[in-house]
Amino acid sequence: MSTDLTPVQLATAVSRLPGFTRWTGMRLRAAEVGVVEFEMTRRPDLLQFNGYFHGAVIAGLADHAAGGAVTTALPAGRIGVTIDMHLSFLAPADGDQLVARANARRIGTTVSVATVEVLTTTSAGGEQTVALATVALRSVPAPDLRPGESELGPA
Amino acid sequence: MSTDLTPVQLATAVSRLPGFTRWTGMRLRAAEVGVVEFEMTRRPDLLQFNGYFHGAVIAGLADHAAGGAVTTALPAGRIGVTIDMHLSFLAPADGDQLVARANARRIGTTVSVATVEVLTTTSAGGEQTVALATVALRSVPAPDLRPGESELGPA
Amino acid sequence: MSTDLTPVQLATAVSRLPGFTRWTGMRLRAAEVGVVEFEMTRRPDLLQFNGYFHGAVIAGLADHAAGGAVTTALPAGRIGVTIDMHLSFLAPADGDQLVARANARRIGTTVSVATVEVLTTTSAGGEQTVALATVALRSVPAPDLRPGESELGPA
Amino acid sequence: MSTDLTPVQLATAVSRLPGFTRWTGMRLRAAEVGVVEFEMTRRPDLLQFNGYFHGAVIAGLADHAAGGAVTTALPAGRIGVTIDMHLSFLAPADGDQLVARANARRIGTTVSVATVEVLTTTSAGGEQTVALATVALRSVPAPDLRPGESELGPA
Repeated sequence: MSTDLTPVQLATAVSRLPGFTRWTGMRLRAAEVGVVEFEMTRRPDLLQFNGYFHGAVIAGLADHAAGGAVTTALPAGRIGVTIDMHLSFLAPADGDQLVARANARRIGTTVSVATVEVLTTTSAGGEQTVALATVALRSVPAPDLRPGESELGPA
Repeated sequence: MSTDLTPVQLATAVSRLPGFTRWTGMRLRAAEVGVVEFEMTRRPDLLQFNGYFHGAVIAGLADHAAGGAVTTALPAGRIGVTIDMHLSFLAPADGDQLVARANARRIGTTVSVATVEVLTTTSAGGEQTVALATVALRSVPAPDLRPGESELGPA
Repeated sequence: MSTDLTPVQLATAVSRLPGFTRWTGMRLRAAEVGVVEFEMTRRPDLLQFNGYFHGAVIAGLADHAAGGAVTTALPAGRIGVTIDMHLSFLAPADGDQLVARANARRIGTTVSVATVEVLTTTSAGGEQTVALATVALRSVPAPDLRPGESELGPA
Repeated sequence: MSTDLTPVQLATAVSRLPGFTRWTGMRLRAAEVGVVEFEMTRRPDLLQFNGYFHGAVIAGLADHAAGGAVTTALPAGRIGVTIDMHLSFLAPADGDQLVARANARRIGTTVSVATVEVLTTTSAGGEQTVALATVALRSVPAPDLRPGESELGPA
């Protein structure tokens, strides 16, 4: 039952469910209550024609991190689903890794809000903020997730 | 040269370039100056775990349609790149096709704006608005695109 | 009781309550279920230093029209309060009147969404779109309003 | 000439120009390059009917702080004007003072971006975040401002 999952288990489990999220290969880097970090690795089918991570992929990573940040702060058995998202693109996302750091800024009975900073990192250790997102999420009953689903492997 | 392309050729050519956009299978339905419509077909790796089109995929289709609407209205040799995007999700996107209809609302020397309505359609003829987007784009020199690239086929 | 008010009465009554809204002099032009139009007249203290209507004043008119559009479509006794607002400024607002036309695009049990087009009009009959807004509102119990309050006059 | 103003002088001078901003009574609390803080004091005509600071007033303070943060980081003689604003309202703004803290997150040749946190403070020392804003601004030539204009007093 999702009510038995730790924040890390919950965020991992949702990322491993079949679909777009698993296809992107995004994975959890860190999670505590209200603060979650996800990352993904550069791959040709995640890019724009100009070689940068595609805006929709950035949106997907930011959205997932926001959902994780809010869900880990909601009462057990609840999950946040996105109702509204605002993205500012600050710089081309041309690094090796794309990282989204999300913070829950409001946890409400019906509506919660998270802010997200999206960065690229390079193997040389560089780091640059490429996008900022603000995400509003509605609280709904969580699907039934089990920690074991995090062993399903890639899609 | 991109300066020789019609709006339909330009919007088609950009969609067929390798990367995320081509991977999604999105394709042009209609294009005239300032008004562009793209669609994509339901596929498991475009969905959330609950079976609806993923928000990031909706964002990607809306972004691409907005880019098409603005680019077809810009002077030849210029293309719009997204700097800011706002999305409101109105209903679960559970149809067979996802369709984005974009309208250029401001064409500026540096910044342009498009609004987008995203709908799902079903084989039974149903149609529902699932998201609204407002996208701001900066005008930059277009990459060199040729109509022939629209024959490259799927990624 | 607010449950006895028509959409026009409800939208008028809220605009006449003391505070910022009444100070701006905004007034109802038209209201039906889900579609509301408000306007205000140019006045020095509503402007930026450059002589255009101030962005915050545009935001206030758009917000109020969005609230009206959603509230007239909610069940009696409920009112929409803004939780999220996105504004795109398309052109300087330099006309004589500022007009906001709002449409409810989603009416939900907890969250509703309206889009707003803000225009300026001139005495010569000109009309220009100056801003677009998307507003999300949460449904809460309405305050007790009476039609008679619309006779209170200016603040 | 605006090119001779310090960040504090520039932010002060713009706030004192006649119009909506001066009417609100907002005033500078702190300014350095890229980081600006403005505040305003509770007053009946700045409120909603429920006694909280009105959303449009919050938008106005956030917008002004964002403009200050960006303008202090632009080359001399340039000023940021808002083209796009997103606001999330997190809690009712019922304190004695409204404070906006803005940070420039991108300074570009044409488009810059600032994030803003808006708080209310009470005389008892309490502090609560009531809204978050992300503002995009276009760089334009600054009007001719003089430090002396900051002595003009209230509108």
